[in-house]
Amino acid sequence: MMRIDIITVVPGLLDGPFSHSILKRAEEKGLATVKVHNLRDYATGKQKQVDDYAFGGGAGMVMMIEPIAKCIQELQSERDYDEIIYLTPDGSTFNQNMANELSLKGNLMMLCGHYKGVDERVRQRFITKEISIGDFVLSGGELAAAVLADAIIRLIPGVLNDETSALTDSFQDGLLAPPVFTRPAEYEGMKVPEILLSGHQAKIEDWRFEQSVRRTQERRPDLMDRKDF
Amino acid sequence: MMRIDIITVVPGLLDGPFSHSILKRAEEKGLATVKVHNLRDYATGKQKQVDDYAFGGGAGMVMMIEPIAKCIQELQSERDYDEIIYLTPDGSTFNQNMANELSLKGNLMMLCGHYKGVDERVRQRFITKEISIGDFVLSGGELAAAVLADAIIRLIPGVLNDETSALTDSFQDGLLAPPVFTRPAEYEGMKVPEILLSGHQAKIEDWRFEQSVRRTQERRPDLMDRKDF
Repeated sequence: MMRIDIITVVPGLLDGPFSHSILKRAEEKGLATVKVHNLRDYATGKQKQVDDYAFGGGAGMVMMIEPIAKCIQELQSERDYDEIIYLTPDGSTFNQNMANELSLKGNLMMLCGHYKGVDERVRQRFITKEISIGDFVLSGGELAAAVLADAIIRLIPGVLNDETSALTDSFQDGLLAPPVFTRPAEYEGMKVPEILLSGHQAKIEDWRFEQSVRRTQERRPDLMDRKDF
Repeated sequence: MMRIDIITVVPGLLDGPFSHSILKRAEEKGLATVKVHNLRDYATGKQKQVDDYAFGGGAGMVMMIEPIAKCIQELQSERDYDEIIYLTPDGSTFNQNMANELSLKGNLMMLCGHYKGVDERVRQRFITKEISIGDFVLSGGELAAAVLADAIIRLIPGVLNDETSALTDSFQDGLLAPPVFTRPAEYEGMKVPEILLSGHQAKIEDWRFEQSVRRTQERRPDLMDRKDF
């Protein structure tokens, strides 16, 4: 069973994502579990302080090393972790290959930055992998951790009801997914492509592959460059 | 006031993100509001069906056009929308520039795909912008919508306590942020760079800029290519 420990100063942000949908199902099936840790529980002072002003001045608070060290070390005393991931905009950009690799791991820890981020020494001392979900800034790493957990956990065999489902997603074969249609066959004059109603499974698969290639060429030619056709 | 309407089949997934942290504060200050709509409330049949098998066969369900059309049209009858965004892995990759642009809008609608996505005709008929948060697949567009909302809303003037805070984030100036440090000045032999304790504000700013440039060169040379130094 995969275990993901998430360390955050805003645990409530993660209430929804882990009690619904695929992650809940993974937990019920005993395939993965996500534990959210409130960093304030590891604060040492009376004020339960977890952040302080930046040395050198400037706007925004910085998360202190001591509570984070205490939390990480306590978790490490209970089990070994394959990776201790820090979610940060200057990390390596997350992609489906990373999701595939991480889905094979056992225990993952994820540290969510908030405010201006964590004291640099946390990164030097404890972090084994720094990951960004994209070139944009969020108010914290919590949504990024939820995104990682979702992308990873859905790849664990048995989590999705139909295991072929993930294999036909965008990016798994380096192509964008083809368009999909369902009932009704006609909606206000808009018809489903006839081929999809034909029952010729082989022709349908050909059409889908062509559509995938065309869509990838039009929208993401950069993905095509990495492939041979 | 900015208004974001999110259409989803899993409204519970979005409970946490919008009742905590920055988004809650934006709502309390009257600067932004997020409304989550359960697509099932717009289903027409007795079964409250919102998805069906894909024409042409294959794994995974497809979200039907009729409930989505009903929901979108009802919202459109109440106000004008600047954009109707569909969150999908084959959309344009979200970045800080898009966040800046969208933060200037008034009313945004976001449709979250789930399962295999929405009937293609929804995209042709209603959607004005297709956005992906990265090259990975999630179990639905809900976390992507939460990411967009967070990235956008924090840029609205007055949402962050200190308005200079967002301006010094990674990407806002095309560079990654410099390292940050806070108390204690020494942790288990690890010291804060002396310059940050010097009190020479101009030298500190120079150091931070150099660190930003160096970090960007090392980690994201692609960002440097877009800049002149």
